[in-house]
Amino acid sequence: MAFTAVRPLRFGDCDPSGIAYFPSYLNLLVGVMEEFFASIGSPWPVMMGERRISVPTVRLDITFSHPGVHGDVLEFRVDVKRVGGSSLDFLHRITCGGTLLWSAEQRVVATDTDTHRARPWPDDMRAALEQHLETSNV
Amino acid sequence: MAFTAVRPLRFGDCDPSGIAYFPSYLNLLVGVMEEFFASIGSPWPVMMGERRISVPTVRLDITFSHPGVHGDVLEFRVDVKRVGGSSLDFLHRITCGGTLLWSAEQRVVATDTDTHRARPWPDDMRAALEQHLETSNV
Amino acid sequence: MAFTAVRPLRFGDCDPSGIAYFPSYLNLLVGVMEEFFASIGSPWPVMMGERRISVPTVRLDITFSHPGVHGDVLEFRVDVKRVGGSSLDFLHRITCGGTLLWSAEQRVVATDTDTHRARPWPDDMRAALEQHLETSNV
Amino acid sequence: MAFTAVRPLRFGDCDPSGIAYFPSYLNLLVGVMEEFFASIGSPWPVMMGERRISVPTVRLDITFSHPGVHGDVLEFRVDVKRVGGSSLDFLHRITCGGTLLWSAEQRVVATDTDTHRARPWPDDMRAALEQHLETSNV
Repeated sequence: MAFTAVRPLRFGDCDPSGIAYFPSYLNLLVGVMEEFFASIGSPWPVMMGERRISVPTVRLDITFSHPGVHGDVLEFRVDVKRVGGSSLDFLHRITCGGTLLWSAEQRVVATDTDTHRARPWPDDMRAALEQHLETSNV
Repeated sequence: MAFTAVRPLRFGDCDPSGIAYFPSYLNLLVGVMEEFFASIGSPWPVMMGERRISVPTVRLDITFSHPGVHGDVLEFRVDVKRVGGSSLDFLHRITCGGTLLWSAEQRVVATDTDTHRARPWPDDMRAALEQHLETSNV
Repeated sequence: MAFTAVRPLRFGDCDPSGIAYFPSYLNLLVGVMEEFFASIGSPWPVMMGERRISVPTVRLDITFSHPGVHGDVLEFRVDVKRVGGSSLDFLHRITCGGTLLWSAEQRVVATDTDTHRARPWPDDMRAALEQHLETSNV
Repeated sequence: MAFTAVRPLRFGDCDPSGIAYFPSYLNLLVGVMEEFFASIGSPWPVMMGERRISVPTVRLDITFSHPGVHGDVLEFRVDVKRVGGSSLDFLHRITCGGTLLWSAEQRVVATDTDTHRARPWPDDMRAALEQHLETSNV
């Protein structure tokens, strides 16, 4: 199954025109990614703090289809599309009551937290990501 | 000439791994866009508040090439690539000391601030945008 | 019973020194307040959007006792201390595993969303706030 | 002379009720503090990164007097009120066109960036802070 997470669209996430402020959407998305990694056994405080593995974003292609308004209940759906040597491709779809608000293709890369250089996925993370890939795209 | 703006990368824009937090980059980008519109005669408080014209983003394709670190002095370069009936395409390039950190293609659409529906650019804004387009791509 | 809410301290809420960035704490606090008002029958989209009642902060006295770190599970406890004609005093205590991280005394004022001028609490909101005051401080 | 810094109140700093979102005010304040420390010879990337000295906030008492609106030009005035063994007390006043919007008393403490424990100010920082204290309160 794809990973999903629910977030209310808060007052503080909206702008003076009354709709979602898109940088706040992306702050929510990073929180959802953090939750996704925890769900596959790699909580970020351990992954980054002890194992020194970071996952910075290198590509992000976003389409905003429909404005989100204060009070909307957002459902984030996260699909893994591809696991590379040190990269990882996600497809994110954010809906409210079945209506697509925005979607994003995102590539992150595993890096060394200290040097910021790319590094291969460790075996346990690769296995967990590949298992997610197989079971969530059936 | 292309529009440029300088922003220091602040402590509050960086994450625990010591590099720029990308949603903060996008918050900076929106501030630079606000400054760009003021530079062509459309300050947002007037444009949105009195004229009821908003410019929400509908597409944003970002490539992060090099991590930004706390204390970097970021130069944002904004180029207008195309002025449509109600749309506007930007190319943003963000460098530090000549090194490209990230770039983004962005499409915004003129909308009615109250209904959030697309509307044509008013003549004065279209003229200003087209003049910018011609003179900045020589 | 006092109102409580749980929030994980996310990567994006922390700073390059590895601890919580305090403006992010306050963004979380505003979200908790939004949840508190919904719990007493005044969800903000309705309260602000339809009834045109806002609740801006006029005083906020914060003591940071212990640094929060990435991954901490924060428990926010919200106590109503006093309901005035148009004001409302809160005491917030934010703990992690029983340790107090920070606390805040906050005064908000009911205002007209359009004019930003103070206005009395409507009867239903006053009744709900006073009921909360009585039952949560036993 | 007191330290001052000017910041426009941006679209992204305002909320759906059309006024400044207070957590964004505090994000601006931290940026101004960063600029203040640079002005007395302690830029934060060096102070925190190389010298391993952080300055977390332990007390912050804020009074919001007048709502700020999108487009306001904010003037931050920073006064040092007291230099302790490892603490530092600021008074911040934020005005727009001569009108006080908000003010804050803030205490920060010098800490070791790695252990988060309090430490004495190094001599050069103490000298710079005391000189600022004397010359700015004449």
